[in-house]
Amino acid sequence: MRGVVTVAVDANGADLGPREVAEGAIIAAANGVRVRLYGPRGEIGEVPDGVDVVDAPVSIAKSADPAHAVRRTPESSIVQAARAVGAGEADALVSGGSTGSALAAGLFHMKRAQGIYRPALALPMPIPGAPVLLLDVGANTEVRPEHLVQFAFMGSAFAQAVMGIDDPRVALLSNGEEPTKGTPNIVAVHAQLAAVRREVLRFVGNVEGTQVTGGAADVVVMDGFTGNVTLKVIEGVSTTLFGAIRARAEISPRAKLGGLLLRPALRGLRDELDPEGPGGAYMLGLRRLGVVAHGRFTRRGFARAIEVAAHGVQEDVIGRTHAALAAAGVLRQPSEVEATVTPS
Amino acid sequence: MRGVVTVAVDANGADLGPREVAEGAIIAAANGVRVRLYGPRGEIGEVPDGVDVVDAPVSIAKSADPAHAVRRTPESSIVQAARAVGAGEADALVSGGSTGSALAAGLFHMKRAQGIYRPALALPMPIPGAPVLLLDVGANTEVRPEHLVQFAFMGSAFAQAVMGIDDPRVALLSNGEEPTKGTPNIVAVHAQLAAVRREVLRFVGNVEGTQVTGGAADVVVMDGFTGNVTLKVIEGVSTTLFGAIRARAEISPRAKLGGLLLRPALRGLRDELDPEGPGGAYMLGLRRLGVVAHGRFTRRGFARAIEVAAHGVQEDVIGRTHAALAAAGVLRQPSEVEATVTPS
Repeated sequence: MRGVVTVAVDANGADLGPREVAEGAIIAAANGVRVRLYGPRGEIGEVPDGVDVVDAPVSIAKSADPAHAVRRTPESSIVQAARAVGAGEADALVSGGSTGSALAAGLFHMKRAQGIYRPALALPMPIPGAPVLLLDVGANTEVRPEHLVQFAFMGSAFAQAVMGIDDPRVALLSNGEEPTKGTPNIVAVHAQLAAVRREVLRFVGNVEGTQVTGGAADVVVMDGFTGNVTLKVIEGVSTTLFGAIRARAEISPRAKLGGLLLRPALRGLRDELDPEGPGGAYMLGLRRLGVVAHGRFTRRGFARAIEVAAHGVQEDVIGRTHAALAAAGVLRQPSEVEATVTPS
Repeated sequence: MRGVVTVAVDANGADLGPREVAEGAIIAAANGVRVRLYGPRGEIGEVPDGVDVVDAPVSIAKSADPAHAVRRTPESSIVQAARAVGAGEADALVSGGSTGSALAAGLFHMKRAQGIYRPALALPMPIPGAPVLLLDVGANTEVRPEHLVQFAFMGSAFAQAVMGIDDPRVALLSNGEEPTKGTPNIVAVHAQLAAVRREVLRFVGNVEGTQVTGGAADVVVMDGFTGNVTLKVIEGVSTTLFGAIRARAEISPRAKLGGLLLRPALRGLRDELDPEGPGGAYMLGLRRLGVVAHGRFTRRGFARAIEVAAHGVQEDVIGRTHAALAAAGVLRQPSEVEATVTPS
């Protein structure tokens, strides 16, 4: 356990504006995290002790080519924040801007952790009674087997350190449970994970799409294309179903009354499914932890993102990931050549 | 329009047994379809005029290696049924057994249609107010761009001929709406479909996972791995959400009463979402139409599968698909070499 943790926060890019991010920072500071905000000082306004402001009005949150924007705009808030984390002035990064910009700035200034091929974006999904960590949900559109193998360890270490799951069950998403099911990549990864010692990784095999939200595993590994689709299909189906149920609750006086009586109970469910609860998606595989909060979050979500990032630092998620990868012998060797990563 | 259509039906493999399939055949026969049932005559029992029975007790529905089983078990019900369709004794195939066996038997005995690289499995998803056809949902774990391009036309022709959608909007599933988003395969397919004349194909671009059930397109094209995951995530999320809502409706007397009052209205929703409604998944790209009903279907679902197959024959879905592919110039040329297809 470390002492006070400092989190660098990009205040640009949030839908509700920099002040909403600052309000989140104020909540997190009241809970013991030091926060350094990068954004337009004029819009951020007054902040109490425990929150510092670095005036950084330039935003690249909406850039179509984040990697290029990161290189060309060193004065932008996300680049300044990531650079501060890379230089050790802060311990973790939180961004409410675009995922692409945060990933590009993170790679460029916080660097890949030793022995990691590719960073991954990990999302703790709030499922009633059975939260599940999905990764990669969008950092890598295409992957090689060794990337997916590392994602399994990265996810397992995160689930232990940050989600508090003791002995996380790690699964591989495929189109069938049998070890022979899936693309050649998936089959190769399955074989490699199945051979890892049980003390190092609790691999429970393949899961199908039906089981992602069904509590069959604590961590589900997939490539970033499939992860993006999976995550968004889950969102889309939830929206469609709740919409259809709402419409059905209007078709008769009887149904209306039923809907009215049921509403408080369903509000509890909505809280359980609240996307702000987990604080956002986590950039794993860098030398420091990064969190991408959703742009539409309120202060509560930003506070949560900052607090979870600080918690991850205190629980040493980076060190634990490295130790697990080393124990399994799947760290990338210095001699291996890896193409430059371009976040999608 | 053709006259009476004959559908060959494999009665083995259904969870409720061959008699349930026969009951479905009887319903379809009452609606004017001739049905030839392949299965154990003793279990099928008495059938009225309009339904013939071919005694075929051997089932390969549960085989782990369907392609092998199809070659080695010519007397099995699915192989006999597919062979009858291939020989022109019947116009379409319906199976309630495994998808793998039906695909293997279809490829082997009904053959790929002229100019088609790969058959695809297309599923009409029953979404409230916005049914959508997903393909491929599992025939091809890995695809090349030219396969996905053909799937777009196959799906469009099916949506017109069978689903009655006049000018179907065809989309490509990706991790972003921009034409540059996705794997290199997806980007190449997008460019090719965008160049097709509007009269031949109404391509509306990429859709993300959030839009699959959101009514943004009538046909959504994807590879069979992503399609399997998408389909099963939709199933899984529906199950999880309805389960969570049911549990919430038990937490207080007030919520219980609300649930009770709302139940009849939600029953209507359940009917709209009924997987038996569309009759199953359609094998497109063969010389004849094939339908894989779900093994857990009741007689109603089998009747629907048989009737929709007959409707597809009457509306000439095969001929329309060929015409659209020819008009777009994307038929496979006789000189092109294509590896043997092994259904997953």
